[in-house]
Amino acid sequence: MALSFEIQKETGSGAARAGELRTPHGPVPTPVFMPVGTHGSVRAMAPDELAGMGTRVLLSNTLHLYLRPGHRLIEEAGGLHRFMNWNGAILTDSGGFQILSLGAAKALTEEGVTFISPVDGSRHLLTPELAMEIQAALASDIAMVLDVCLPYPADRGEMEDAVEMTTRWARRCRRGGGLKQAVFGIIQGGVYPDLRRRSALEVTEVGFEGYALGGFCVGEPSAVTFAAVEETVAHLPVLSPRYLMGVGSPEALLEGVARGIDMFDCVLPTRLARHGTVFTAGGRLTARNAAFARDGGPLDPDCDCYTCKNYSRAYIRHLLHAREILGVRLTTWHNLHFILSLMRKARQAVLDDAFPSFKQGFLDRYIAGEAERRAPGGEEEPIG
Amino acid sequence: MALSFEIQKETGSGAARAGELRTPHGPVPTPVFMPVGTHGSVRAMAPDELAGMGTRVLLSNTLHLYLRPGHRLIEEAGGLHRFMNWNGAILTDSGGFQILSLGAAKALTEEGVTFISPVDGSRHLLTPELAMEIQAALASDIAMVLDVCLPYPADRGEMEDAVEMTTRWARRCRRGGGLKQAVFGIIQGGVYPDLRRRSALEVTEVGFEGYALGGFCVGEPSAVTFAAVEETVAHLPVLSPRYLMGVGSPEALLEGVARGIDMFDCVLPTRLARHGTVFTAGGRLTARNAAFARDGGPLDPDCDCYTCKNYSRAYIRHLLHAREILGVRLTTWHNLHFILSLMRKARQAVLDDAFPSFKQGFLDRYIAGEAERRAPGGEEEPIG
Repeated sequence: MALSFEIQKETGSGAARAGELRTPHGPVPTPVFMPVGTHGSVRAMAPDELAGMGTRVLLSNTLHLYLRPGHRLIEEAGGLHRFMNWNGAILTDSGGFQILSLGAAKALTEEGVTFISPVDGSRHLLTPELAMEIQAALASDIAMVLDVCLPYPADRGEMEDAVEMTTRWARRCRRGGGLKQAVFGIIQGGVYPDLRRRSALEVTEVGFEGYALGGFCVGEPSAVTFAAVEETVAHLPVLSPRYLMGVGSPEALLEGVARGIDMFDCVLPTRLARHGTVFTAGGRLTARNAAFARDGGPLDPDCDCYTCKNYSRAYIRHLLHAREILGVRLTTWHNLHFILSLMRKARQAVLDDAFPSFKQGFLDRYIAGEAERRAPGGEEEPIG
Repeated sequence: MALSFEIQKETGSGAARAGELRTPHGPVPTPVFMPVGTHGSVRAMAPDELAGMGTRVLLSNTLHLYLRPGHRLIEEAGGLHRFMNWNGAILTDSGGFQILSLGAAKALTEEGVTFISPVDGSRHLLTPELAMEIQAALASDIAMVLDVCLPYPADRGEMEDAVEMTTRWARRCRRGGGLKQAVFGIIQGGVYPDLRRRSALEVTEVGFEGYALGGFCVGEPSAVTFAAVEETVAHLPVLSPRYLMGVGSPEALLEGVARGIDMFDCVLPTRLARHGTVFTAGGRLTARNAAFARDGGPLDPDCDCYTCKNYSRAYIRHLLHAREILGVRLTTWHNLHFILSLMRKARQAVLDDAFPSFKQGFLDRYIAGEAERRAPGGEEEPIG
């Protein structure tokens, strides 16, 4: 088996749980957040730094690596782990969502999706078979099927078509994978409970090593997201890992964990960091704000990351304004540490039968801080 | 004393020597290269990484820090060392060369130089007294006097005026400095041997803890540089540290050491790195070239830096093309390590009475490699 999953603690049906994914590149305690390394590098971070903060699994983007430097080049280099010098686990997405989010899709047919390369304008056809072939060459621990992901809102007829094609493509993808590579199916269906149920039943019938909830975080309100997540989880096999794609805010991660999700990924922590916004126990903080110009304290007084142990808000603010790379390195390090640490605490709370109170305690403080900072006077200063 | 300097080995008058600068922030073996941290950060590097590769002294730019975040803010934070979390020594330049190189100078009078801020377009007057006041607030270990630095070529009359004003400004700067901060004088005179001599005699008569050779690397041919360096060194006190400003290529560093220079600084290693060019024992290498797309070897097979121990040319090339921050981090790390390591080897060669053969051996291999790479077929590929 390329992957096994052990549930170590369950708190109820469709409720928070703690487990362990066993991959060819080591065990991964769950629930887990996967930092995103789009081009085979988590922006601004080195692999040893990620490992040092407890990262056990990264996500990398099939489509970007296919376009540059090319999956055959990475295969010749010994696979993506060796190419990027990362010894932990890697999950690769299939490229479908990327084509949607880049606005590069030209035509969707039964065969696959035709798109224009954002690198050089060339035309490509991504089929389920090619998505699996690329991921096999990258030699990721977990490959994702190619799915049809629609933006929100999508009408019912379109979503039904997307669900049906996602199932047919899942069957074609199931021929991929192998002893060294697990494959996860993806459930679509948007915010239509019956379509989510249908997609879950069809894709689990094909049978995969794990199941992702796709088509979320495409513009829908958060309350709608979690209602549909609940509906989907209810129809997924209890013993398989569940992966909620594209979720990465502290609030949404805890809502996902509360509904029995085991895995998450999102560019939010790294993207916010590059714009100078950091997570703290008391809510988000815009590190470039004038209020911090003379603030000698750490980004988050509760944090023990490299950034918070060594650098002041005043220095980080200065680095961001001077457009120094170190500024982005420090905010990225902090944000990833914050999210990984939050997931470790959530996991421990599940093991201790204390997840609901942990979640409430975290959110009370986090959301109160957010509200305070958004009050009049909490201006946001552009980087100049 | 804010600074003492011990010469541990001399190989002749105006010839290579090894010594030790003792600063309030620890000893600095010489000859030494000082990485440049313009805005209080060496681009892409963290202070602990610099210390880890053996950096003992950094240069930071008075003018940039005066404009942003402001010297009073840094003073309130406890000085530049504390602000940037750097425990080694710091030398600050005076701002004169920066105004020239930014093309920001509006008027030069006896009082000082009026310039326009590149940050916000505001007008400022930098006087010798203000240059010293700013550096006192930054609390660097070594402050530099404000000088008048002309581009090449400058006519004799202009250069004579610049030398005279540099002397008068040196007297005004000498009132600065103190028990915790050494001050270095700067010798001007361009490529006119008699003006270099005159400047050296006048500035050493004012008396400083060390002497810099300014006005080099402003466009003159390299042969002219080193003839004028020799002429200047001949008139500097033997027991004082000598600092050749703005020199940082491997070839020029060794030529400087050969002429009795103890200290150097330059943005070249970090700037080249950001453009994807790295130093190797066999000459410069353009890491983004297509030739390295499938090259699994390190940037420099002779190098034991973090980059060369962990990453391939193929991966680094990919990172540079994908504009990933890690690419610039890795090339910067390598280039600084290469230069610091070269200086350590040069120092050891001086101590071993073997500097001339060390220099010749290095240059033979380095320059042969350069020539080879510039032969037809060694195309340079733009980052796309």
